[in-house]
Formats: sequence, structure tokens, C-alpha cells
Amino acid sequence: MNCNTPTDVTFSFTGFAQRGGRTDHHKDGWGIAFFEGLGLRHFVDHLPACDSPVAELIQRYPIKSRNVIAHIRRATQGVVARENCHPFVRELWGHYWVFAHNGDLQGFHPRLHGAFRPVGDTDSERAFCWLMQEVAKSHAGVPSVAELTLTLRELVPQVAQHGPFNFLLSNGQALWAHCSTNLVHVERRHPFAHAQLQDEDLAVDFSHHTSPNDRVAVVVTAPLTTNEHWIAFAPGQLRVFVDGERVG
Amino acid sequence: MNCNTPTDVTFSFTGFAQRGGRTDHHKDGWGIAFFEGLGLRHFVDHLPACDSPVAELIQRYPIKSRNVIAHIRRATQGVVARENCHPFVRELWGHYWVFAHNGDLQGFHPRLHGAFRPVGDTDSERAFCWLMQEVAKSHAGVPSVAELTLTLRELVPQVAQHGPFNFLLSNGQALWAHCSTNLVHVERRHPFAHAQLQDEDLAVDFSHHTSPNDRVAVVVTAPLTTNEHWIAFAPGQLRVFVDGERVG
Repeated sequence: MNCNTPTDVTFSFTGFAQRGGRTDHHKDGWGIAFFEGLGLRHFVDHLPACDSPVAELIQRYPIKSRNVIAHIRRATQGVVARENCHPFVRELWGHYWVFAHNGDLQGFHPRLHGAFRPVGDTDSERAFCWLMQEVAKSHAGVPSVAELTLTLRELVPQVAQHGPFNFLLSNGQALWAHCSTNLVHVERRHPFAHAQLQDEDLAVDFSHHTSPNDRVAVVVTAPLTTNEHWIAFAPGQLRVFVDGERVG
Repeated sequence: MNCNTPTDVTFSFTGFAQRGGRTDHHKDGWGIAFFEGLGLRHFVDHLPACDSPVAELIQRYPIKSRNVIAHIRRATQGVVARENCHPFVRELWGHYWVFAHNGDLQGFHPRLHGAFRPVGDTDSERAFCWLMQEVAKSHAGVPSVAELTLTLRELVPQVAQHGPFNFLLSNGQALWAHCSTNLVHVERRHPFAHAQLQDEDLAVDFSHHTSPNDRVAVVVTAPLTTNEHWIAFAPGQLRVFVDGERVG
């Protein structure tokens, strides 16, 4: 989620958490990271999201953030363990960077000679460390969103040739989303509509919770609601969101 | 806390959390990090620990870990904000490193030319980034606990000359604790005793919750219990704990 006003994810996360073991098979751990100012709150749990006391806290305790990345895991590579739960976090240039991956990279073992090494044994964390290493080499300090997007457009295909590489990346300033196989996004803005969750019998009228200037973009592998306009990504497409709006 | 068997911190944290705004004035945010295998769980909140829903979760949901670092903050340098909540986390050599500081460093602005930059504006995160930078320069990969201790004994006085530098540092393998002004530790082992919390009317008989081989070391700025043998650090002393036992 990327927004122009700090927004809580209570509604979307409620549907999303059901896919972590109940309405879907992504039951091998989950995690969520909220940017708050420059800081970050990062929650991970190895329990399925639908059963996790930590997930229950997130649904109960509205944390307002402009950039949130959440992930439910179905283990393809790497054991079910804390160190393999997404999203992953690293610091670069005095900013936190958060990354979550859906997919399966085969034979991706790049040379990691920089400051970023995986802690666990997933293809995903390896890909994140490599991206961070290459981004760090490409710029002397935090680049503009447009510049970083250009760099990512060069780097990403080198990973994506190894297999499905749907990912979300944020430094708290923008949200980058890359699609290999399946990713959709929706932009919510004035006039806000009524939305019905796909995975749980729950509806919300966003107009009761928002002001006319609020803008929220949500990117996900499969639509979370049944009555909103979700726009599918093309394979190989990288989209960029700033202040709740697609900018690239 | 450093232990030889994954142990929950429910009892100690209950007393500790009271100092975050109730029995003590450390009310400007708090945080806790649990190593689980190579992975890490990291919770921070800007609310006083005594009122925080996240702290309430920690007291209710026993997370078992062999290395835990917790911190309650009273802001001396840096605003009250998420990015300034301890403990801080960085990755080096494919391991997470966790750091929390009690104290106040004056005029400490080292040259940070390495891979570690502060995200917030505290003296504490600056000191952590400098320690990580210098440790990274001193060793090609994860050193032994004894080697890293030698390196820290050389580095720490360069920071400590700037002011109180009580800190805890862990890479999940050992716990390093340095005292400038006030730090005490206790080692709990067989036969386990009854303990009475200092800050809340709560007692526990550890023998009901442990096996004879369990060993737990707890390091804190002021004793958490009224009837255990807490051993004060000398000013300038760095102690090292592995598997619930002091090794240096």
C-alpha cells in the first residue's frame, strides 16, 4: 500500500490474512512492514497469518503509514523459519528498504561482494541483497524516484530471467512493484466507494474513513475486493507509486 | 537476556515494561528484539511500554529466544519518533546485529564512510553504526566470540570518552554488555529459586518453568527482582555472555 496520507491497513489486511492458511495455501509464515516517518515497524511470524496472535494485533491496532508491504509465504525455496519470512529489511544511505517477493528463481546465485548478505536461504533474500548491492553501486546517495526507477528497469530483467519475480520494494518514499506472472493494483480516491472483501464477509465504506484529498494505491497478487477496478500488470512490467498514485 | 535454551521473557518483561512510564520515567518509546535461529523479531512502539498494545502482546505471547535485547527510552538526543526507538538492527556478514544504548554521548560525530548510516538522529544509532563499520573493517567474516570481544575492547573506549555508554549488543551468538555508569547482571541456573519482581507485585518460581540444565543470564541497568544476586559492573567493564553464562 502506498498513500499520500498515513492510512491504516486494517480492512485490507483482514482479507489478506485469510489467505495465509484459510482461503489460500500461503501458510508458511507471514510478515508486514510499516514505514512511520523514516522509521519502520516490522512484524513477522512463522504461524499462518490466519492463526497468528501478531496478525490479530495488526487487525486490532491501527498503525497508520504511507507505505506498507505485507507478505504471506508458501515455502518454495528455504525452510520454514523466521529468517526466511518476508518482507526483508536493509539499511542503505540512512534509509530503510523493504522487499517482498512472490515467485521462484532457479539457479540465481549472483556474486555478493557488497555490504548486503542474506541471513536465510531463500532465493528472494538473495535477489534483494543483489538488487541493493547493485543500486548502491549505481548511485552515490538516495537518487530521485525517477532515477531509481531507471536503475531498477536495468537490473530487474537480470533476475527475472531466472523465474517468476513478482516483487514489492519501498524505501518509504515510493513503492516499486514488478510483475512476472500476476500482480494487480487499485487506486482509491475521492469519491470513495463501498468495497466488499473477497476473502471474508466484510465490507467498508471508505468515504466514512477518508477525507476528499486522500489517495491510496494497493498492489497485490490477486484482487482483495470484488467490486473495485483492479488493473492487471503486464508480464515484465515495473510500476511506481508515489503519494497513492501511479507515476511510472 | 542470554540463555542456553530458548526461553521466554514474559516474567522479566512484565517488570521491565512498568519502568516505561509507570515506575520510572523512560516513557519515550520502547523496543525489543528476539533472535529466533538466525532470524529476528523486532517490535518497537512510540507509546510508553506500560500503555503499549504491542508490549501487552509480548507479555501475553511467549516468544522463546536465546538472545533478547529490550529497551525503554527517555529521549536525551533525537526527537520522540519511530526511527529513534532502540534496539537498532543491522545486517553484517549474513547475521543480524542488535544494539541498545543507555546514556548520552556528547560531541560524538565520527566519520561514517562504510556501509552503515543512521536513519534517525540519536547519538546511540550513530555509535552503533560506527561500531559496525569498525568491526566490519577489523574482520573478514564473523569472528569468534573471543576475537570480537578483543576488537570491542579496543573500540568501545573511543566512544565511551564522549559520555555514558551503557550498551547491549548481540549477533544471536553472544551478548556483549558494556557499562559506563550502571549495569548489573544475574545468572539463573539450577537449583532455580523463587523471584519477586521489583516493579510489580508478581513472583515466579523458576523451578516450575525450567529444566535442570537451563542457564539464563539477564543484564539490566537496575535489578529487576528484589531477592536475587545481581552483580554490579565496574565502570568501563565489558562483559560477554554465551549460553547463559559469563565467558569474559
